[in-house]
Amino acid sequence: MLDKRRNSDHREIGRGRRPVRNPSSHEQAPLTLRLREYLVNLVVGPPLASNQQPDRKVGLLTALPVFGLDGLSSSAYGPEAALVVLGAAGAAYIEPVTWIILALLAILYVSYRQTIRAYPNAAGSYVVAKENLGTNLGLMAAAALMIDYVLNVAVGISAGIGALVSAVPTLQPHTLMLCLIVLAVISLANLRGTPDAGWLFAPPTYLFIASMAAVLGVGVIRIIAGDAHPGALTAAPRVAAAAPAAGAWLLMRAFAAGCTAMTGVEAVSNGVSAFREPQVKHAHRTLTVIVALLAVLLIGIASMARAYGAHAMDQNKPGYQSILSQLAAAVLGRGIFYYVTIGSVLAVLILSANTSFADLPRLCSFVAKDKFLPGSFAALGRRLVFSIGIIFLSTSAALLLICFDGITDRLIPLFAVGAFTAFTLSQAGMVAHWRKAHRRSAQPSLSHLIRSHSRMLVNGVGAIATGIALLVILAAKLREGAWIVVIAMATLISLFKVVRAYYKRLERRLRPRGPLSFKQNVAPVVLLPMEEWNYLAAKAMNFAVELSDDVTALHVSALGAGDAAAEDRGLRLKWHQEVEGPAIRAGVKPPRLVCVQSRYRRLTNAVLEYVRELQEESSERLIAIVIPELIKVHWWEHLLHTHHALRLRRALLKHGGARVVVVSVPWYMDPPLNLDEMSSTQELDESTAGDGGASVTQA
Amino acid sequence: MLDKRRNSDHREIGRGRRPVRNPSSHEQAPLTLRLREYLVNLVVGPPLASNQQPDRKVGLLTALPVFGLDGLSSSAYGPEAALVVLGAAGAAYIEPVTWIILALLAILYVSYRQTIRAYPNAAGSYVVAKENLGTNLGLMAAAALMIDYVLNVAVGISAGIGALVSAVPTLQPHTLMLCLIVLAVISLANLRGTPDAGWLFAPPTYLFIASMAAVLGVGVIRIIAGDAHPGALTAAPRVAAAAPAAGAWLLMRAFAAGCTAMTGVEAVSNGVSAFREPQVKHAHRTLTVIVALLAVLLIGIASMARAYGAHAMDQNKPGYQSILSQLAAAVLGRGIFYYVTIGSVLAVLILSANTSFADLPRLCSFVAKDKFLPGSFAALGRRLVFSIGIIFLSTSAALLLICFDGITDRLIPLFAVGAFTAFTLSQAGMVAHWRKAHRRSAQPSLSHLIRSHSRMLVNGVGAIATGIALLVILAAKLREGAWIVVIAMATLISLFKVVRAYYKRLERRLRPRGPLSFKQNVAPVVLLPMEEWNYLAAKAMNFAVELSDDVTALHVSALGAGDAAAEDRGLRLKWHQEVEGPAIRAGVKPPRLVCVQSRYRRLTNAVLEYVRELQEESSERLIAIVIPELIKVHWWEHLLHTHHALRLRRALLKHGGARVVVVSVPWYMDPPLNLDEMSSTQELDESTAGDGGASVTQA
Repeated sequence: MLDKRRNSDHREIGRGRRPVRNPSSHEQAPLTLRLREYLVNLVVGPPLASNQQPDRKVGLLTALPVFGLDGLSSSAYGPEAALVVLGAAGAAYIEPVTWIILALLAILYVSYRQTIRAYPNAAGSYVVAKENLGTNLGLMAAAALMIDYVLNVAVGISAGIGALVSAVPTLQPHTLMLCLIVLAVISLANLRGTPDAGWLFAPPTYLFIASMAAVLGVGVIRIIAGDAHPGALTAAPRVAAAAPAAGAWLLMRAFAAGCTAMTGVEAVSNGVSAFREPQVKHAHRTLTVIVALLAVLLIGIASMARAYGAHAMDQNKPGYQSILSQLAAAVLGRGIFYYVTIGSVLAVLILSANTSFADLPRLCSFVAKDKFLPGSFAALGRRLVFSIGIIFLSTSAALLLICFDGITDRLIPLFAVGAFTAFTLSQAGMVAHWRKAHRRSAQPSLSHLIRSHSRMLVNGVGAIATGIALLVILAAKLREGAWIVVIAMATLISLFKVVRAYYKRLERRLRPRGPLSFKQNVAPVVLLPMEEWNYLAAKAMNFAVELSDDVTALHVSALGAGDAAAEDRGLRLKWHQEVEGPAIRAGVKPPRLVCVQSRYRRLTNAVLEYVRELQEESSERLIAIVIPELIKVHWWEHLLHTHHALRLRRALLKHGGARVVVVSVPWYMDPPLNLDEMSSTQELDESTAGDGGASVTQA
Repeated sequence: MLDKRRNSDHREIGRGRRPVRNPSSHEQAPLTLRLREYLVNLVVGPPLASNQQPDRKVGLLTALPVFGLDGLSSSAYGPEAALVVLGAAGAAYIEPVTWIILALLAILYVSYRQTIRAYPNAAGSYVVAKENLGTNLGLMAAAALMIDYVLNVAVGISAGIGALVSAVPTLQPHTLMLCLIVLAVISLANLRGTPDAGWLFAPPTYLFIASMAAVLGVGVIRIIAGDAHPGALTAAPRVAAAAPAAGAWLLMRAFAAGCTAMTGVEAVSNGVSAFREPQVKHAHRTLTVIVALLAVLLIGIASMARAYGAHAMDQNKPGYQSILSQLAAAVLGRGIFYYVTIGSVLAVLILSANTSFADLPRLCSFVAKDKFLPGSFAALGRRLVFSIGIIFLSTSAALLLICFDGITDRLIPLFAVGAFTAFTLSQAGMVAHWRKAHRRSAQPSLSHLIRSHSRMLVNGVGAIATGIALLVILAAKLREGAWIVVIAMATLISLFKVVRAYYKRLERRLRPRGPLSFKQNVAPVVLLPMEEWNYLAAKAMNFAVELSDDVTALHVSALGAGDAAAEDRGLRLKWHQEVEGPAIRAGVKPPRLVCVQSRYRRLTNAVLEYVRELQEESSERLIAIVIPELIKVHWWEHLLHTHHALRLRRALLKHGGARVVVVSVPWYMDPPLNLDEMSSTQELDESTAGDGGASVTQA
C-alpha cells in the first residue's frame, strides 16, 4: 500500500495492481455498464497504455505503399478530371496537357529532394512555412493542408466508389450511401489505430502497380500492332460539349484539373522520420520511385486515352464508366483481369483516403500544440491516436460527400488549390531557409556560396512553378468552386487566431500571483439547501458544522405550490428536536433554519437569490454551499428523482460568482460501484502487461 | 436587506425586489441566453406564480361544454364503430344494438348520480376504488383510466381528422401527419395552460348540438314525409363482409364496439368540485342534460342510418365518408350547412381529446402523490400545469397514432376496455362505500336500512351491468386488439408497485438516525487534483488549507503521453517556490505534492484509484476532494477546454463512496453572469405583480 507519510523526495512506487476488488460489489456491477464497456472494447478496442506506441521504421519496399499510395492513386482521377474539362476535344489535347504536368512534377521532385535533406525530422509545409516565413503564412499552409486533406478523403472515396460503380453498374444509384459506408469503416479503423499500416497497404499497392503495368503494357503493344482503336469503346455522351476552338483557356482549365494528379507527392517529405537509417537516402529513393511510377502512369493513361479515344462520362448518369475502367475493358476485355484491375484501383483509392487520416490529425496536433486549435486535438485518445482529429476529419468529409452527392467531378474543382498553396509556401519557405542558413554561415567560401545559391535556385524555381500553377488553378477553377476553398481558408485562419487569442488571454489570467498565502482566513459562511430533514440532510449538516460555525440551512417551501406554512411548521419542529436542541446541549452555536417561499416553484432561483444577498451582506467571506446529493447508480433511478441537486450545483457554479464554493456531499441508497467495476477490462489488460502499472512519485 | 442575524422566531420579510442588478453585467448577458429565454416565453409563455392559479367555478351552461364534450363527441364514432362491425347487416341491426347501449347508459346515469352525491370533492374511479376496494383495485382503475385517456386522445384526433378528410377528400393521404400536427398544437396549448377552457369550448359544443339537431330534425321529417331513402347514398364498399347469419356473436361485437359511445360520461363525477354552489345540484343537472343529449344523438343517428341505409366505409381508402358526413350530406346536401356541421364535428372531436389533457395529468398527480409514479408527475410546471403528465400523454398518443397510422377503426378495438373497467370498479367501490357507511351508522332505523340498501342496489346494478358489458367487450375484442390493453394494464400496475417499493425503501433509508451529533470530528483528508500550478489551483489550494492541515495535491502526469519526468520536475520546482517555501516560513505544515503517472492517460481513473488507497489507509476520516474548476460561460468555450473537472466530479460522486465529499472551487475568466440576467422576465413579471415577491421566514 502506498505510504504517503514518508516524505522522501522523488520516490517511484510500483503499484502491483493487486485486485483489491470487493467480490460482492463485483456481482452488483450493473449489466448496462458492463455491456457498454464490452461494446466499446469490441468496436474501438481496449485502451492502450502510453508505452504501447508502435515504433517501426520503414525501408523502400514498405515505404512505397505507405507514402506512395496517395500520390500514385491520384493517377486514377487526375487524367479523368482533365478529360472531363476537355470534353469533345479530350483525346486530342490530353497528351500535351499531361506533358506540362510532368514537367511541373519534375521540378517539384528536385525541389522536394532538397527539402527532405534539410528537414529530416518533419518537413510538413506548416512547420517549414511557420519557421521560415512567419506564423501567418504557416497558418495559411496549415489551413490549405487541412482543407486538402478533407478533400482528399472525399475525392479518394468517391473516385473509388466511381471505379466500383463502373464495374458493377447496378450499384450506381447507391453511390452516396456506399461512399458514407466506406468513410465510416475507414474512420472506425483509424479510431482503433492502424499500427501495421504497411502490412495492410502493400498488397493493394503492388497489385495496383502490377495491373496498371499490364493494362498499359498490353495497350501499348496493341497500339504498336495497329490494333489500337477497337470498337470496344462506344462514343459515350460527352459531359461538356466545349467548342474545340476554345484553345488556351480550355488547355489552362484542363491543366488545372489535371494538377490534381500531383496531390500526395509531398507525403514522403512529411514522414522522413519514419524511415530506416540512413533516413535521407531511403526517403530520396522512395520519392524517386514514386515520382517515376506516377509519371509513367500519367503519360501512359494519356496516350492510351488518345489512342483508344476514351472520353469522360457523367458519373451522375447510369452506365458511367471511369477512364481507367474504359481502358482496362478495352485492353483486357471484361474478364477476370478487368475485375482484378478495378478491384486494385478501388482499394488503392480508398486507402489513399486513409493517408489523410494519418496526416490531418497529426497536423492538427502540431497546430493545437501551438494553441491555434483546441487542446483536445493534441490529446491522445484511448488507442493512442488523435481521436478528435479523426472525428473532425470524418465529419467534414461526410458533410462534403453529402453536399456534393458523392460525385468526384463536382469535388475536383475544389481540389488542388489547397495542395498547391501548401507546395508554394513550403518551397518559398525553403528559399528563406537557405537564405538564413547562408547568412548564418561563418565561412562564406565560393563553393559554399555556389551551393547555397544553387539550393535557393532549385527551391525558388519550385516555388515559382507551383506558384504559377496555383494561379492558373485559381483562375481556372475560381468560379467552379475554388472560391469555396478560398473562403474556407480565410475562415480557418481567423479561427486559428481567435483560438490562440483566447488561450493567451486565459494563460495571462491563470498566471499565479505570487507565492501562496497561509494567513488564517475567516471561516466561510455555510449554506445548506435542503428539501426536508432526513438522513441525506443530516449527513451534509455533519460536514457543514465542521466547515464553520456560521451554518444556515435553507429550505425552499411551496415548490409544489402547496401550503407553505404547514410545510415550514413541520420542518421547524423537527429542526428544533434534532438540530437546535442537541446543539445547545453540546454547547455549540446552533445552525439556523431559514425558510424561503418560492412563488415560481424554482429551487435554483430562490437559492441563487439568497446567495446573492449573503454576498452583499458580507463582502469578504467565502460562501460554501453544501449540497446533499442522492447519487443515482442506475439509469432508471434518474426517472424517479428530480435533479434539483445537479441543477443547483450547475447554476451556483455558473452564476454564483468568485466567492462561492460548492460542496457536494453524496449519499448512496446502495453501496456505490467500485472503481474496479468501471475499468475491469483495462485492469485485466494491465495485469497481463505485468509491468507494475502506474507509478507514483512524490515530493 | 435581509438581516439574518436577528433570531426572532417566525419572521416574514417582504422583499421589495429592488433590482440590484449590475448595469454593466446586464450589457454582457449573452445573446444566446436571452434568445432562449425569449423563445421559451414565446412558445410556452412566461412563468406563473403559484398564487396565479385560476379558481373559477362553473354552472350548467359553462359546465356542459367542459364536462359534456367528451361524452357527446363519442356519438361521432360510437355508432360508426358498431356499423363497421355489422358490415352488410348494418342498417338492419343498428337500432336494436343502440337500444341496449341506451339501457346501459340509463343504469350508469342513475348510478353516477349517487356517486356524485357521495363524493362531492373528487369522485374519480381511482380514489373511489382505492378507498373502498383497496390499493390493488385502485391501481387497476388508475391503469385502466390512464390507458383510456391516451386512447381517447388518439381516437378523438383520428376521428376528427376522419371528419375533415370526409369533407376535403384531397387531404386523405395526409391523415397521419394531420393527426400529429393537431396533437402537437393541443399539447402545446396545454403546456401553456388553458385557464379559460369554458370560453374556448362553448361555441363548438353548442354549434355541434345545434347542427346535429338540424341534421336529425330534418332527417326525421324527411323520413316521415316518405322522402327517406334518396339516391344520395351510394352503396359504399363494405369493410367487413360479415355473413348476416352470424347473429348473436355479431350483435355482441357490435354492442362492444358501440359501447365506445359511452366513454366520457364519467367526466362530471370527476369534477364535481369545479361546480358552483350548490355543487351536487348543478352537477346532477349537467349530468342529466349530457346523458339525455347523448341518448337522443345515438338513437337519432342509428335510426337515420337505418332509414338512409348508411354503411361504414374504410377510412384507409380514398373517398372515405364518415357516417355523420354521409347523413349530413344526405339530409342537407353538400352546401354551406354541411360544411358547418362537419366543422363542428371536427372541433368537438379534437376538443374532446383535449379533455384527456386535463384529466390524465391530474390523475397521474394523484397517483404520484401516493408514490406509485415518479414525483415529477406531481410537480407543477412553469405554467402551473402538470407538465410531465402532459408530455407523457402526448408522447404516448403520438406513438399510438403512428403505430395505427391515424385510422380510427384500428384504434376502436383497444378503446372502451379501460373505460368499462373504471366504470365497474367505481360502481363496485360505491357498493362497498355504502356498506361501510351502513355499518358505521349508529342508528339502524328501518328508513335508514332501506335507504342504504337501495343505494347499494343502484350502484350494484350499475356495477353488474357495466361488469357484464366489460366481459362482452373483452370477449368480443380480445383478439382484435383488446389483449394489448390487458397487457398494458398489467404492465402499468406492476410498474406502479415497483415505483412505490423503490420510494418506500428510499424513505426508510433516509429516515434520520437520531438527533444530530455535534462532537468534533477529525479534520478530513484533503486531496486537490491539479493539472498545473496556476491561479486556478492556487485559489482551490487556499480553500483546501482552510479545510484541514492534511492536504495533498495530486498531479497526474503523462496525460498527453509525453515526458512525465520532465513535467514533474518543472511542477515540483514551482511547488517548492510557491507553496512549500511560504508554508514553512509561515510555520504551517506544508501541503504535499504527489505525482502519479497515468499509463492510460485517464485523469479520472488515476484520481479514483488514489482515493481508494486513501480510503483503505485511513478507515474513518472523510476525504474531501477539492476540484478547481474553470467555469465556461459561453457555449463555445466548451469546445476549447477538456472537461476533466466535470468528469472527475461526476466519477467521484458516483464511485467515490460514502466517505468522499467533493468541493468545487469555481474560477471565472470573466465575471460570471448575474442572477438577474437568468430570470429577467420572471423578475419583471413579479415586480408588476407588486406583492413584494418571495417571502422569507426564519427560525
